[in-house]
Amino acid sequence: QIEFNPVDHPHRRYNPLTGQWILVSPHRAKRPWSGQDESPATKAQPTYDSECFLCPTNTRISGDKNPDYQGTYVFNNDFAALMTNTPNAPASDNPLFRVEGVRGLSRVICFSPDHSKTLPELSVPNIRQVINTWNEQIEELGQDYVWVQAFENKGETMGCSQPHPHGQIWANSFLPNEIARKEQHLKAYYQQHGRNLLVDYVQAELADGSRIVVETEHWLAVVPYWAAWPFETMLLPKAHIKRMSELTDEQRDDLALALKKLTSRYDNLFQCSFPYSMGWHYAPFFEADTDIEHWQLHALFLPPLLRSATVRKFMVGYEMLAESQRDLTAEQAAQRLRDVSDIHYKEQ
Amino acid sequence: QIEFNPVDHPHRRYNPLTGQWILVSPHRAKRPWSGQDESPATKAQPTYDSECFLCPTNTRISGDKNPDYQGTYVFNNDFAALMTNTPNAPASDNPLFRVEGVRGLSRVICFSPDHSKTLPELSVPNIRQVINTWNEQIEELGQDYVWVQAFENKGETMGCSQPHPHGQIWANSFLPNEIARKEQHLKAYYQQHGRNLLVDYVQAELADGSRIVVETEHWLAVVPYWAAWPFETMLLPKAHIKRMSELTDEQRDDLALALKKLTSRYDNLFQCSFPYSMGWHYAPFFEADTDIEHWQLHALFLPPLLRSATVRKFMVGYEMLAESQRDLTAEQAAQRLRDVSDIHYKEQ
Ligand SMILES: O=P(O)(O)O[C@H]1O[C@H](CO)[C@@H](O)[C@H](O)[C@H]1O
Ligand SMILES: O=P(O)(O)O[C@H]1O[C@H](CO)[C@@H](O)[C@H](O)[C@H]1O
Repeated sequence: QIEFNPVDHPHRRYNPLTGQWILVSPHRAKRPWSGQDESPATKAQPTYDSECFLCPTNTRISGDKNPDYQGTYVFNNDFAALMTNTPNAPASDNPLFRVEGVRGLSRVICFSPDHSKTLPELSVPNIRQVINTWNEQIEELGQDYVWVQAFENKGETMGCSQPHPHGQIWANSFLPNEIARKEQHLKAYYQQHGRNLLVDYVQAELADGSRIVVETEHWLAVVPYWAAWPFETMLLPKAHIKRMSELTDEQRDDLALALKKLTSRYDNLFQCSFPYSMGWHYAPFFEADTDIEHWQLHALFLPPLLRSATVRKFMVGYEMLAESQRDLTAEQAAQRLRDVSDIHYKEQ
Repeated sequence: QIEFNPVDHPHRRYNPLTGQWILVSPHRAKRPWSGQDESPATKAQPTYDSECFLCPTNTRISGDKNPDYQGTYVFNNDFAALMTNTPNAPASDNPLFRVEGVRGLSRVICFSPDHSKTLPELSVPNIRQVINTWNEQIEELGQDYVWVQAFENKGETMGCSQPHPHGQIWANSFLPNEIARKEQHLKAYYQQHGRNLLVDYVQAELADGSRIVVETEHWLAVVPYWAAWPFETMLLPKAHIKRMSELTDEQRDDLALALKKLTSRYDNLFQCSFPYSMGWHYAPFFEADTDIEHWQLHALFLPPLLRSATVRKFMVGYEMLAESQRDLTAEQAAQRLRDVSDIHYKEQ
């Protein structure tokens, strides 16, 4: 009888934050690829582009003119997916046709006036400004909305239509699926074990070490044990922090450094501007006396590239209809990201 | 006070099969697009390609030679994501590091020897052969595995690396996430209402009419009320059918016709080979005396195109981190698909 070995044998790993499993097929990594190639962003961008809707002093499609901003700049999305003012939908009488009216808004955050720079290419002080802006937006919108999703789609592969460095904020009058599910799983763990799931997880990963990608004084980035995307990572504070507003100045400065190192490792892996979607999860803005001790602030990076700047992982047929599947283990992915420098290749 | 109107007001719809919500933003459809373009398959393919791993008489990467097959042809995937023989993983003592060893296999089904034809371009009798092959494979593998996922990734956009018309079969010693979730929701509805959810749904959609795309004697294709992808459809028998093997000859012939019409409408919408992932869900192969009355056979078509042959919907940042979002209503999508012919544009 051969012994189970996660590097050779297909297996499933459990994501305790979502209750879902991921199929891991590490023996499959040698599969040849003759399908679609991605076009990585290798073209150098100018520092200012007169056609860009996000560059300082340019006029947007709405007719509004951007100021000559110096740091970050926030404006309302001209094609917002949500509106602040919508009537409630009438209750449905058939359980198969359930609908609810929703309120919300979408904003764009320009990370820098410099059209040519992506997050890893910004200086640590500039990344610190982005962190401040995330925090201000979340705090402001959290007064009106139960959920505020801060995220970035980076690269054409991730549906980003604008090379100018920017992220988005969508505020919601409802708890979106992923947050509702996380609330449920974090709470259940807390009730069962009397401890915070992600605080326990940070300790377990620090003790194990095999999935660590970046460690700074206050932050830890790991390829989660249950990662679905090839080089997925989770970035967490070492301390118990329920929301971004609780971070000290020192922890914020150190977060800027951790973000710089993590995203530089990504770009260095295939020597390209590494596409991803990233975003923040934290305790929702429930009513004042709701218990949120089970929450821990964390960022998720979900990057699609698998083998090179042009070959991505497709989450398609089997993945959509049955279960997420990956071709390398989380430990292998972490090792690859550790093997490259944490100084960006353009700055070496 | 304005009245709620699903064509103007952002809302969420509930998917009773998954327990998840979908954010619908119908006012957003006029958003301009300057991001990544897809490359639709417009290039005519030869009927035989000597470089193709799937064409009759060619030698595959494994060294195996394909026979000179005439109808469908099934072989084991040379880079299977699963293996028939893997040891069990030792039980984990930390609830944050849960793993299980799995068994399974992956097969490829060539739909036709003709390299140049996609599903909608095959004749109805040829599509009937594909249905027979799906059924045979599912029945055979269902004797050893609790779940057998039959699916097709069509088009480069859907990670398909081979224009030769083919689908896949992945057999699993476990119930994948999506099936486990559906089992739970179908069962709960059955226990609560004493009726089959999808049988009820077929009746409700037939009565309403606004989401119907194709109706044949025995089959119904609708854009589900809770569709996430722009032109997503669900194809169901009108009768209560728990597994494909229960279908009568007449129902199978009629399914071939329904598939031909549905996929022709897709290709006609943007006059291109319409990319999608599709697959079958039905009662899993539980132990013999397990109640499966709550199951109903159905196919799902998950196509990414949004506005044209080159502009797709990206399910990225907000969608991955928070909730699926769509820019047109299910009723609008169904209307668009009804407005085109059900005869394929190449056959008109
Ligand atoms: O086996 P194929 O067709 O090369 O692979 C394709 O379908 C699989 C199943 O959905 C996915 O895991 C792959 O990412 C995709 O490229
Ligand atoms: O950046 P945009 O143009 O708003 O849009 C992008 O991000 C959105 C939020 O994840 C997605 O809904 C869109 O499909 C994507 O193209």
